[in-house]
Amino acid sequence: MPQEPLKPIGSEAIAPFTYPDTLLRAQRRDGPEGLDIALFGMPYDGGTIARDGARHGPGQMRQMSINIRGCNMATGAAPFADCRIADIGDAPVNSFDHEQSVDTMTAFCKEIADAGAWPLAAGGDHLITLPVLRGTVDSSDPVGLVHFDAHPDTHDAIFGTKLNHATPFRRAIEEGLVDPKRHVMIGLRGTTRETDAALDWAHEQGITMIDADMFFDLGAKATAEKAREVVGGGPVYVTLDIDGVDPADMPGTGSPEPGGMRMRDMQVILRGLRGLDIVGGDVNEVSPPLDPTGYTALNAAHLMFEILCLMGENRVAREL
Amino acid sequence: MPQEPLKPIGSEAIAPFTYPDTLLRAQRRDGPEGLDIALFGMPYDGGTIARDGARHGPGQMRQMSINIRGCNMATGAAPFADCRIADIGDAPVNSFDHEQSVDTMTAFCKEIADAGAWPLAAGGDHLITLPVLRGTVDSSDPVGLVHFDAHPDTHDAIFGTKLNHATPFRRAIEEGLVDPKRHVMIGLRGTTRETDAALDWAHEQGITMIDADMFFDLGAKATAEKAREVVGGGPVYVTLDIDGVDPADMPGTGSPEPGGMRMRDMQVILRGLRGLDIVGGDVNEVSPPLDPTGYTALNAAHLMFEILCLMGENRVAREL
Amino acid sequence: MPQEPLKPIGSEAIAPFTYPDTLLRAQRRDGPEGLDIALFGMPYDGGTIARDGARHGPGQMRQMSINIRGCNMATGAAPFADCRIADIGDAPVNSFDHEQSVDTMTAFCKEIADAGAWPLAAGGDHLITLPVLRGTVDSSDPVGLVHFDAHPDTHDAIFGTKLNHATPFRRAIEEGLVDPKRHVMIGLRGTTRETDAALDWAHEQGITMIDADMFFDLGAKATAEKAREVVGGGPVYVTLDIDGVDPADMPGTGSPEPGGMRMRDMQVILRGLRGLDIVGGDVNEVSPPLDPTGYTALNAAHLMFEILCLMGENRVAREL
Amino acid sequence: MPQEPLKPIGSEAIAPFTYPDTLLRAQRRDGPEGLDIALFGMPYDGGTIARDGARHGPGQMRQMSINIRGCNMATGAAPFADCRIADIGDAPVNSFDHEQSVDTMTAFCKEIADAGAWPLAAGGDHLITLPVLRGTVDSSDPVGLVHFDAHPDTHDAIFGTKLNHATPFRRAIEEGLVDPKRHVMIGLRGTTRETDAALDWAHEQGITMIDADMFFDLGAKATAEKAREVVGGGPVYVTLDIDGVDPADMPGTGSPEPGGMRMRDMQVILRGLRGLDIVGGDVNEVSPPLDPTGYTALNAAHLMFEILCLMGENRVAREL
Amino acid sequence: MPQEPLKPIGSEAIAPFTYPDTLLRAQRRDGPEGLDIALFGMPYDGGTIARDGARHGPGQMRQMSINIRGCNMATGAAPFADCRIADIGDAPVNSFDHEQSVDTMTAFCKEIADAGAWPLAAGGDHLITLPVLRGTVDSSDPVGLVHFDAHPDTHDAIFGTKLNHATPFRRAIEEGLVDPKRHVMIGLRGTTRETDAALDWAHEQGITMIDADMFFDLGAKATAEKAREVVGGGPVYVTLDIDGVDPADMPGTGSPEPGGMRMRDMQVILRGLRGLDIVGGDVNEVSPPLDPTGYTALNAAHLMFEILCLMGENRVAREL
Amino acid sequence: MPQEPLKPIGSEAIAPFTYPDTLLRAQRRDGPEGLDIALFGMPYDGGTIARDGARHGPGQMRQMSINIRGCNMATGAAPFADCRIADIGDAPVNSFDHEQSVDTMTAFCKEIADAGAWPLAAGGDHLITLPVLRGTVDSSDPVGLVHFDAHPDTHDAIFGTKLNHATPFRRAIEEGLVDPKRHVMIGLRGTTRETDAALDWAHEQGITMIDADMFFDLGAKATAEKAREVVGGGPVYVTLDIDGVDPADMPGTGSPEPGGMRMRDMQVILRGLRGLDIVGGDVNEVSPPLDPTGYTALNAAHLMFEILCLMGENRVAREL
Repeated sequence: MPQEPLKPIGSEAIAPFTYPDTLLRAQRRDGPEGLDIALFGMPYDGGTIARDGARHGPGQMRQMSINIRGCNMATGAAPFADCRIADIGDAPVNSFDHEQSVDTMTAFCKEIADAGAWPLAAGGDHLITLPVLRGTVDSSDPVGLVHFDAHPDTHDAIFGTKLNHATPFRRAIEEGLVDPKRHVMIGLRGTTRETDAALDWAHEQGITMIDADMFFDLGAKATAEKAREVVGGGPVYVTLDIDGVDPADMPGTGSPEPGGMRMRDMQVILRGLRGLDIVGGDVNEVSPPLDPTGYTALNAAHLMFEILCLMGENRVAREL
Repeated sequence: MPQEPLKPIGSEAIAPFTYPDTLLRAQRRDGPEGLDIALFGMPYDGGTIARDGARHGPGQMRQMSINIRGCNMATGAAPFADCRIADIGDAPVNSFDHEQSVDTMTAFCKEIADAGAWPLAAGGDHLITLPVLRGTVDSSDPVGLVHFDAHPDTHDAIFGTKLNHATPFRRAIEEGLVDPKRHVMIGLRGTTRETDAALDWAHEQGITMIDADMFFDLGAKATAEKAREVVGGGPVYVTLDIDGVDPADMPGTGSPEPGGMRMRDMQVILRGLRGLDIVGGDVNEVSPPLDPTGYTALNAAHLMFEILCLMGENRVAREL
Repeated sequence: MPQEPLKPIGSEAIAPFTYPDTLLRAQRRDGPEGLDIALFGMPYDGGTIARDGARHGPGQMRQMSINIRGCNMATGAAPFADCRIADIGDAPVNSFDHEQSVDTMTAFCKEIADAGAWPLAAGGDHLITLPVLRGTVDSSDPVGLVHFDAHPDTHDAIFGTKLNHATPFRRAIEEGLVDPKRHVMIGLRGTTRETDAALDWAHEQGITMIDADMFFDLGAKATAEKAREVVGGGPVYVTLDIDGVDPADMPGTGSPEPGGMRMRDMQVILRGLRGLDIVGGDVNEVSPPLDPTGYTALNAAHLMFEILCLMGENRVAREL
Repeated sequence: MPQEPLKPIGSEAIAPFTYPDTLLRAQRRDGPEGLDIALFGMPYDGGTIARDGARHGPGQMRQMSINIRGCNMATGAAPFADCRIADIGDAPVNSFDHEQSVDTMTAFCKEIADAGAWPLAAGGDHLITLPVLRGTVDSSDPVGLVHFDAHPDTHDAIFGTKLNHATPFRRAIEEGLVDPKRHVMIGLRGTTRETDAALDWAHEQGITMIDADMFFDLGAKATAEKAREVVGGGPVYVTLDIDGVDPADMPGTGSPEPGGMRMRDMQVILRGLRGLDIVGGDVNEVSPPLDPTGYTALNAAHLMFEILCLMGENRVAREL
Repeated sequence: MPQEPLKPIGSEAIAPFTYPDTLLRAQRRDGPEGLDIALFGMPYDGGTIARDGARHGPGQMRQMSINIRGCNMATGAAPFADCRIADIGDAPVNSFDHEQSVDTMTAFCKEIADAGAWPLAAGGDHLITLPVLRGTVDSSDPVGLVHFDAHPDTHDAIFGTKLNHATPFRRAIEEGLVDPKRHVMIGLRGTTRETDAALDWAHEQGITMIDADMFFDLGAKATAEKAREVVGGGPVYVTLDIDGVDPADMPGTGSPEPGGMRMRDMQVILRGLRGLDIVGGDVNEVSPPLDPTGYTALNAAHLMFEILCLMGENRVAREL
Repeated sequence: MPQEPLKPIGSEAIAPFTYPDTLLRAQRRDGPEGLDIALFGMPYDGGTIARDGARHGPGQMRQMSINIRGCNMATGAAPFADCRIADIGDAPVNSFDHEQSVDTMTAFCKEIADAGAWPLAAGGDHLITLPVLRGTVDSSDPVGLVHFDAHPDTHDAIFGTKLNHATPFRRAIEEGLVDPKRHVMIGLRGTTRETDAALDWAHEQGITMIDADMFFDLGAKATAEKAREVVGGGPVYVTLDIDGVDPADMPGTGSPEPGGMRMRDMQVILRGLRGLDIVGGDVNEVSPPLDPTGYTALNAAHLMFEILCLMGENRVAREL
């Protein structure tokens, strides 16, 4: 890495509430060129079934990154010291056209991949994971998924529509972008309809499901171990729907389900993934109008930082 | 009207916070049969450009109807005494498919027209006016419009999409459902792009525009007079985008524009429309997540009641 | 007035957010002895029909008195310089027992009268005016009322109950505490039931009603003139239900009615009452849970200060 | 059960924010006839000592039932498939009269029992449990109670009043409706006065108390076991004051006490009660003005669904 | 102006909630070079007497600029078409050191002046006007002030401190940066202490004061005329403390005073200043924690845009 | 203790929402004379780096003490029965002058010590601990510290300023007021800068640090044990920055860090400190504008009560 690292905003004497608001206090760049990891927003919520507003998620996550200081006290990770990281803004979307938006988001992510950078996105609803995968994964080399969620998001269609926030993983697996044998879902819970074709299909694909009951039996550390086993040695993508976390920590989301993992659990699991070949990730479903205090976005930003730490360490490890 | 009137909930000794929450405390019916005026929700916000959430508008307007007691102290109108009025629930929508949703909302409204009832809708974003007009107006007999709004909503397309909350009146005029010579817009204001094709087109059609400057010069009573002149003697539909009203009264909406009419102004204008042949109406763009206190929905419900008073008096006048 | 005035908190170098929170930044005293005017709370909301929470009104009005500096820039009134004024705390109430609470609140107010002080209360729901009048007015010398309200509050009973926030003026007039010929209601509006016995009764008593339409025709100054004419030369009590004011200024109240007077109007009317023989008053129906930002209570506290200015000037005038 | 089940709203293609808002997305019926389990509201908060607003609890619980899909992913329970369940609206109340309200609520519940249905209520303050028990339990066959609460609610009187939210279980036991030997309280904690007659009396009756310390020692599963032992084989009623749960999960309640059980704990305990003869229940003390975001009501609705699952399974078991 | 104009974000097909959030949707630049007008934040609130939080004002004003589309419908002004305008971020501050912060903010503004650009700032508390004036005005050519405010801000010191939000105009006049004969204050009102040295001093300097009473007598248009007379033909700076506006429009500020001008009034006054030689301005005292809904910041951003229109037209006029 | 105890407000029949709002419902006194323990506020937030507002913390903690009833159900502690305790109001501060404010707060605390009372303070930002220690501790007899916090607050200076909320323990140790060998920090976590001089210095002094990872390994009881070992037998002060607690319990604070201890944990740890020689304490960093619901302040007040119980028991033990 011959280039200088891009220090996060605030590493010098600058008050933490000073502009610009960027994701994780990264510097602002206009594109992915020269970056190791590109942070960006995907302000699309047209795929939401219940309560919307996640189009404003990236904005509030930027504002609530105020206290993130660049280094992880628990793990010692210092991604900004090790890698060139910047916030490259938001992918373009058309809030009236699912297909077009998925295409423009895909193209945006493809530019990141073409520049040699790894993607770390802030949603938007969970549909946004599909364009990230389409733009950055080659179906000849599908990724494994560590997938935090209350819902499997493997429906074929809702109301006859194939692109929405309940379907991205059905599409991604169909398209060969994700290897279902290396896909682990963590945090499933809540209520279902009488027949749940999404869960059935997920089982058929061989996806590993750690529902809330299993999680609370295993505990966070063993859950991380289990996830490591499932995804194994190949490239891994971390997708984190914040409704996988308990609503006490994430009230500002469209489809909250009581009884989930807590922020501490999430930190332990994510830190337990160190050493995996993590090459991308996203945090999604933050709906600011449902929590104007920003507490949800604060927690989401801190989890995004945990994923960044994993990606940064892996980027360095790969280059050794 | 041989049938008994349907008294509003609360005309007897019932605490006003008692279930069911219906629009304007009307009784609940499963369909429009036997009604003079059907109240209903259109929980669709897929047409929103800026901040969404209006899909929850009908629900909050029902909850904030708590204090509406059936008679208008200012005008003496008593719509529930004169007409059979009920809340028939929400039109079906598919939040992922504009075209399908417009079709199912249109069909829902057509059933109202077929039953001989007049429609009074709670949105949803302003796109919902198009299906109401499609379902209840015959292009051989177009309606005049009293149209309260900060924006003209006469764009041809936004981001290439023809069905969204900036286009309904372009479509309705193209389809012959609205007579642009009898269309008056009240409350226009705010910022525009350098060229504003929507305003230009509206002018070309002969739509009368009373922007905020004109309104404040005229005052509310003269504005009502002007509106009466424009719409004249034929059937009239009242469409009320709450962003026509000042954000101090309607903070909970997606595209607020400072400097609008106040609630008192709205009451005076609407009461100034008495005697017109008003056959339908809607109040739209209430976004509850943007105002969880319900104050916006309270005001919106009270304006919906003013429109109901006009429709009720007209229904009686027509039957004489 | 041989005693020293009690300067308001903050007249010296003290940060305005410093304890104690008192009504209008008055000093705190344990009882009315030696006071000219006693400020106090009446934290009772058991008389509320629709949305409750006004039991917390005095507390929030104390907190939102933070910016009140003792002198009225518009009128020059300086009540704390002219009179001995203190916050004597809250009247005791039993939230489960209307009759007992009315009795204990009456006794509390009677102590104020017995000490020679004048009462200025913060509610609580509007029922609280009854015990103030019972405790401080002698039926041989009934007061005139300047009464701001969206509703007449002259019902005989609601749900068969004679003591609630829709009945205090029926009771007070029946008991000879208020002279209905010197009673003016300002701000009436909203919706009514088909027959409105409360309004009918009020008319029969000869109460003067300035409804919202009349108010907006007259304007604030002429409204004050009209009120002066009605109450004439005898002792006057000012009762201010904040729902008389527009909900844009007072969202945090149980029964808001759009289209009311604005804060500026209220200031003009109240200042237009200077010179009347005002001997008591109250501001009521602030419900903090319905407006946790405190903006409603801020406005209510400032109107309470306007009433204090009137009482202070009158107290001085009487003693001359 | 020869009749068709009443499928919950949303089992077909209907957007989840579509009217009507019913408890747990059940269908709406006008009365209990033909039902196995009647869901209903008890919008009464006149019994509240500290912060009120629970009169609006049923309304917000209906709105926040938006994501409940009818089947329990954790237990497989499918109450709507097994039983005829509907929301029959709210019991009538007079917010000014405790005794009358308790009587009308009792009569409402008696109709449910007379129709052969089991009651599952949404409060209202905790006093509402008394009329449910009075209306549906015969003192010849008292119920056992699984009672979640931070407070014992076994006072004799508060401020001299015998009917309020601190007394329902004193009354119910005195009246023979509850067998104190089969009464288990879970979650007691907080602060007390120097002598606590409520706790003393509860001990004397032989009520089993699992306070917060005991709960955290036992854990959720053993707590459920302990509760099963206490209530044994006879009919059981589950009463859930949401202040038994930690305020992090239930901020919108009048008397929150830090340090309680979490939502996950509640789910585990409730699911641990499967197989008991549970014939009724309630969830109470949701105060929407204290949490306008609806997060408290969301959690309360999900716990109400857990109780419904228990009642549904028991109803089927009894009919076998 | 040989350079290309900098079109605002959103002049092409980009969803309005897309990053970056800039003031008035201007483009982002790292410094003032090549600009005609520099927009920037001054995130300093160490000068606040009552309720703080204005340090976050620029951030929320950026987020709530979402609906600003570049042209003024009422006046036709199109500042982005006429001038090179960009958001150059925030001035550096040290929240612990008034003097140092004023110095660093002054230096930041001096760079703007040195680059030949005019300043338009978002506060921060009202102290921020002092460094703007120090950095951009030469005491040989003092500016006139159009100054909107509820308070005169001409104290000598508060608690012995000379730099705070009640003193900037005392300092600026002492330093010869402002000509008091060309200084007009609009909107003064509220409460005062028994002696008000700030007002007295302001009178002595010959400052013209249009208090709320005068404003409501004059009306907005005549107020603008009066302001024009006072400031006359020389360079003018517009400083807008949002507490000059009524709290119904600006609840999120530290020292709100009921009874002020409304947004419509502000628009009329500001538009009435067209043709003056306006060379700078600021909008200050937006405290986001006091209004998390952003409604205050929305209004503030729209008023900042009105000032921008004035500056843009003047910049063009000067260059002709 | 020959004097009568001062019973808390509410020990007799008084509704809990009745004035005055005092800390922990203690009685109000004007000074520390005759008290065993003085409760007071320190409304200073000029030392805040990120989000301010803690100047209003004491006020909201008073309002949210509503449910505290004087005795600790878990431990049986009854401080008001054992000691003379009162709320003596707020220390004077100058929000513009750190040094002066620290001095006036120090003097206020010195009066408490001189009266023989022990201090228990409500902040304010964490800088307030320094004046408490300066005013009440003699450097010849330094205290041990049980210090709950997400951050060590042992910086030398921030932005060159030595007095702010990141430095109090550096100052206190330098001044010999705290014995670093008897100083235990509990709850450290979050993000750091690349070099963290504050942590390094703290290590060098021999401060014991139990970060979040250690805490979750140990559990609450063992953490209390560890803390007891560190502070040993001498006088101990408990300082509780609420950001040591998880943001799910304390959202209303300026620098929240996810993944902290929960309220239950805090209760267990604090109760585990019984028997130590605890002579003072504080709870700080409650920022009401960041949580207007008051839930944060509720939790903070309950933790302050736990500390009071420890001090009360110790005061009695010392006097035996």
